[in-house]
Amino acid sequence: MRPIAFLVAYDGTNWCGSQRQKNGRSVQGELEAAIQKITGTFSPVTLAGRTDAGVHATGQCGRFETASCVPDERFSLALNTKLDNSIRVTRSWGCAPEFHPRFSAVERTYRYTILHAPVANPLLARITGWVREPLDVERMTQASAVFIGEHDFVAWQSAGSPNGPTVRNLTKLKIGRTRALGTDLVEIEIAANAFLYQMVRNIVGALIEVGRGTLETEDLQLLMEGRDRTKCPAPAPPQGLCLESISYGNY
Amino acid sequence: MRPIAFLVAYDGTNWCGSQRQKNGRSVQGELEAAIQKITGTFSPVTLAGRTDAGVHATGQCGRFETASCVPDERFSLALNTKLDNSIRVTRSWGCAPEFHPRFSAVERTYRYTILHAPVANPLLARITGWVREPLDVERMTQASAVFIGEHDFVAWQSAGSPNGPTVRNLTKLKIGRTRALGTDLVEIEIAANAFLYQMVRNIVGALIEVGRGTLETEDLQLLMEGRDRTKCPAPAPPQGLCLESISYGNY
Repeated sequence: MRPIAFLVAYDGTNWCGSQRQKNGRSVQGELEAAIQKITGTFSPVTLAGRTDAGVHATGQCGRFETASCVPDERFSLALNTKLDNSIRVTRSWGCAPEFHPRFSAVERTYRYTILHAPVANPLLARITGWVREPLDVERMTQASAVFIGEHDFVAWQSAGSPNGPTVRNLTKLKIGRTRALGTDLVEIEIAANAFLYQMVRNIVGALIEVGRGTLETEDLQLLMEGRDRTKCPAPAPPQGLCLESISYGNY
Repeated sequence: MRPIAFLVAYDGTNWCGSQRQKNGRSVQGELEAAIQKITGTFSPVTLAGRTDAGVHATGQCGRFETASCVPDERFSLALNTKLDNSIRVTRSWGCAPEFHPRFSAVERTYRYTILHAPVANPLLARITGWVREPLDVERMTQASAVFIGEHDFVAWQSAGSPNGPTVRNLTKLKIGRTRALGTDLVEIEIAANAFLYQMVRNIVGALIEVGRGTLETEDLQLLMEGRDRTKCPAPAPPQGLCLESISYGNY
């Protein structure tokens, strides 16, 4: 048996999330089924980041072990012949035995894309959150400073999270306007050593309120210090979120 | 009976095209079914531009007649409650009796979006054509001059077109790079008084060959003059194409 690591991109719309579940088809389950079709053996897959139903990835990382004679780099092509089009393995390689997609990761980068338009756009409905009201991106950028650095992010963690440390180091929060695909977009790029459950969507939900003028930077500071999730704005919807890349430092 | 005009946006992926067909569900058929649910009467819908299966629209224009007491401007909201999420009526209004979505149009604008990336991106697979190879956008822009102005576009019309005049006036062809949604895009905006069957996809297919270096500007000129579709490059795939807007001059 030897370990294979891989990068995988997916449109999360039709899956119940990244993680295998009893009811519903998951990205992990689809990958395991494809590996079994190629190798003839069931190999459990480990993924770096857990993504909810409707959340996408372009740079999710995974690992499995196999005794198959398929060359390491050919697994991506082989698996894609067995996977639904909404899941694409973009690269595969033989990895170090101690490499773990989740525990070896030193930084995760997510992108949240807002469709900023007065009317609906079905072309982008699967991959963007939609805001109709004016958004002050300058104000959002100023407010984003509240989140940068090492903080206890417990207020930005959704209910249903496992108990555990809630301090994270947020290393990047960049907000910008783009015009593409015939419409205005507001894109939020956010990186941290690790994220709590729904932390990105909760932070984006709060930043949208700042952009709309219903919250001030100081409110975010107080919410952070208050450590009370129930006082914070609702999370931004899942479809705007994408796990873009994972950094492994020396690996 | 009074005439209602409307704008409609749709993700064309799951529809057999804009036009009603015996086998398969079309955008027109879905709109007619929604109108019947709201008004209780079947009202045929006329659309401005015919789009193929997989082709999208953000600014398709339509018209129907009704005796319903639903206020003109409320039809958009009312129809959206009965339509699939992939079809959204973005505006409705009472129009002049002589207004015809197709024959009153003076200019149509399409956008073709190319995903320009070395690896697949399932998030954008429904709404972009994918080119892996380097693309020289400068060369494409130079070559686009061949198409601008009034020409006989018969070489850029796919087989199966109705007989009829093939001279069109192409008023805009703009090619640009964008970075959005974490990836590189090449966007082609193209406007004309009217288009022949699959003319945009055929022109884009030829421009991609110029961008890849397999055709020269002079080749496009010769293909245009040769008037022989069978000598021209294959059309770009439908999913990158979107009918963006229709101009009605004085209406």
